[in-house]
Amino acid sequence: MPAATSSAPHAGSRPGGRSARVRAAVHRAVEELVAEDANDALTIPVVAARAGVHATTVYRRWGSIGELLADVTTSRFSGGIVVPDTGSLRGDLERYASDLAKDLGDPDTLALVRATIGTGGEQGAAACLGERQHQLEAMLERERARGNPAPTLERTMDAVLAPLYYRAVFTDLPLTAEWTRSLVSHLLPG
Amino acid sequence: MPAATSSAPHAGSRPGGRSARVRAAVHRAVEELVAEDANDALTIPVVAARAGVHATTVYRRWGSIGELLADVTTSRFSGGIVVPDTGSLRGDLERYASDLAKDLGDPDTLALVRATIGTGGEQGAAACLGERQHQLEAMLERERARGNPAPTLERTMDAVLAPLYYRAVFTDLPLTAEWTRSLVSHLLPG
Repeated sequence: MPAATSSAPHAGSRPGGRSARVRAAVHRAVEELVAEDANDALTIPVVAARAGVHATTVYRRWGSIGELLADVTTSRFSGGIVVPDTGSLRGDLERYASDLAKDLGDPDTLALVRATIGTGGEQGAAACLGERQHQLEAMLERERARGNPAPTLERTMDAVLAPLYYRAVFTDLPLTAEWTRSLVSHLLPG
Repeated sequence: MPAATSSAPHAGSRPGGRSARVRAAVHRAVEELVAEDANDALTIPVVAARAGVHATTVYRRWGSIGELLADVTTSRFSGGIVVPDTGSLRGDLERYASDLAKDLGDPDTLALVRATIGTGGEQGAAACLGERQHQLEAMLERERARGNPAPTLERTMDAVLAPLYYRAVFTDLPLTAEWTRSLVSHLLPG
């Protein structure tokens, strides 16, 4: 065994490091291509060429363009929005809805969400929601722990999450602060 | 001028007929490919091959896969759902929401909606809504014409349209009759 390989690491000797670099390059390529809003279809060969890696590497790791987009979207959304703790359910939901509106109002995020829905099927749709439902449930549970009544998770999804995603994805209406507050006040009247 | 051309029409002499046949073949190819849920990206060459027409014909007529999908979705949705006239806003909205739930609950329709959102940008998103907002406005106007108060269009979109589209596109929850009625009763309490 040549001495060089045991004393000096070189390209390819740390699979974890190389693997992480490939992942970062492929994710960045997807984000760039989606943001450019090209008329061409987003395919694995197109992504691989932009990332400077072999298409077979991408196929082996992600399987399909849909799974790749779901992975990118999951990464983008994880940790992006934290569950607020303002002391009241109304305060928490208003803060949360406002943060989500800013996120969905970002053109690059919206382009990624649309592309992921388009190619990722059920898995892509789930990636676009991320931890939203668990986060809502955490806020509702905390309100109940304070001894107050709280709406069901289903009702909160219908009244707050649904209009935010619907307005962002399907319409060109703005997600204003006044409007997001109105969603919460219809859910929690009085 | 040869007599034949003026007396006997032949293939190619009726551009409207051929054009309509190409359109039907291309639309059918898109619907089949979307319903098959292939992992491969939906591109104009793939659609053209399935339809048995030249890709250049499709590019010339639709420009991009996004515009083609928006056109197919618009055709699918036009005339599919009529505005009910039951005599009350509650009855109209319940019927309308139930019809829309059936439509969005159809796997082929849902696959087409997702694909169109994914590639069609703003135009694709608008195609997925079709006449929905005008139809809601018509029901609200009729209620006002009967001398009754009615919620705003914005509020009705948030309370009825948004949860239907959100639940269909982003979740695997069923769009049950009981649930669609609950959307209307939250909008129109009492």
